[in-house]
Amino acid sequence: MRVVEGILDANDTIAAANRVDFDRDDVFVVNLMSSPGAGKTTLLERALPELDGVRPAVLEGDVRGSLDADRLASLHVPAVQLNTDPGFGGECHLDANMVRSAIPTLPLDEIDLLVIENVGNLVCPAEFRVGEDVRVMVSSVTEGEDKPLKYPLMFRACELVLVNKIDLLPHLDFDLAKFEYHLDSVHPGVERILISAKTGDGVDEWRDWLVRAATHERQPV
Amino acid sequence: MRVVEGILDANDTIAAANRVDFDRDDVFVVNLMSSPGAGKTTLLERALPELDGVRPAVLEGDVRGSLDADRLASLHVPAVQLNTDPGFGGECHLDANMVRSAIPTLPLDEIDLLVIENVGNLVCPAEFRVGEDVRVMVSSVTEGEDKPLKYPLMFRACELVLVNKIDLLPHLDFDLAKFEYHLDSVHPGVERILISAKTGDGVDEWRDWLVRAATHERQPV
Repeated sequence: MRVVEGILDANDTIAAANRVDFDRDDVFVVNLMSSPGAGKTTLLERALPELDGVRPAVLEGDVRGSLDADRLASLHVPAVQLNTDPGFGGECHLDANMVRSAIPTLPLDEIDLLVIENVGNLVCPAEFRVGEDVRVMVSSVTEGEDKPLKYPLMFRACELVLVNKIDLLPHLDFDLAKFEYHLDSVHPGVERILISAKTGDGVDEWRDWLVRAATHERQPV
Repeated sequence: MRVVEGILDANDTIAAANRVDFDRDDVFVVNLMSSPGAGKTTLLERALPELDGVRPAVLEGDVRGSLDADRLASLHVPAVQLNTDPGFGGECHLDANMVRSAIPTLPLDEIDLLVIENVGNLVCPAEFRVGEDVRVMVSSVTEGEDKPLKYPLMFRACELVLVNKIDLLPHLDFDLAKFEYHLDSVHPGVERILISAKTGDGVDEWRDWLVRAATHERQPV
């Protein structure tokens, strides 16, 4: 346990160094987390190209490949890929040091908002700060209403929950009221947006949240 | 890197000890893996209560809670819960030692098939053998067709892929042919079953696979 605490202390030290670099260029940083396939990249594709007066970039964390970075680059959103594959079979999360290694490749002086898209995983990403201002998670309604109870740290760690794929609600046995009840039981009153990247429901609200966060509501880590 | 290799070597040693215990009672062991919410428990609820002549039990791995074990117990399937929460914020996978700690609580001499339901995660569970005969993964079509490319180790590690929630295909932009192409690119020809826990499509095939595996096709780890 002492080893683990040591690792987390070291991580926090590096996260603070990242924070200094982000602050130097006044960049607001979002750590975006979810299960695999919950829709993180699609929600960024919808929101980032049309942010009112806010210049975004994305740091894409994936075990392997550059599929997501390529998707965003095709929309003219600056995107840098960070692969965790060099670890043993691939690290399941980003940590502060991995993000630190990518900082020299980021155009920090040309952007206002950096979204760090974490590896798809509901456990470890919540344990490692990377120097972000806020943490946002995406929870797809296809994953079931019990997820806050099974992964409480993740739901507790974030400042905003995007409840995604609500267009599928008519086809699922998903009780939205029960999900929100579970969510409030682990993180009372946490801000949430019901959203569908497919139909566009909630996308304006998500875009407004990002603009407001990046322009007014700076908070320290 | 040497530390990591040491951890994996130690894990394999304990996995082999688990294997000896399972073999003593002639129990066939499936390590079942997927993203959070892909449908592992529901597919077990559908298949396990009606296995022809095969007596099943389930070891449920979760960060917290006993929701899944309770669901299976209500169907009279023996289920033991293993929580990974005592780690720092919760371990994101089961390892051989965690499974070993649960063995005394399992009715090995009364069962033929043990399904170990891993923590929902597409990265680390594939890195830790636990003494299983085979590894099965569930990939829900709601997660997108790019998942084999983004989590290749997981798709490569398993002997069977259950492609779940196919009832939702009419409502998704999911190209099944493209998914299978990606799957074959990382694990050529791996066995797969298209399945829907909701409609029952593919459930007979999944049940038959389990019965066949547990009664005839014993393979060493």
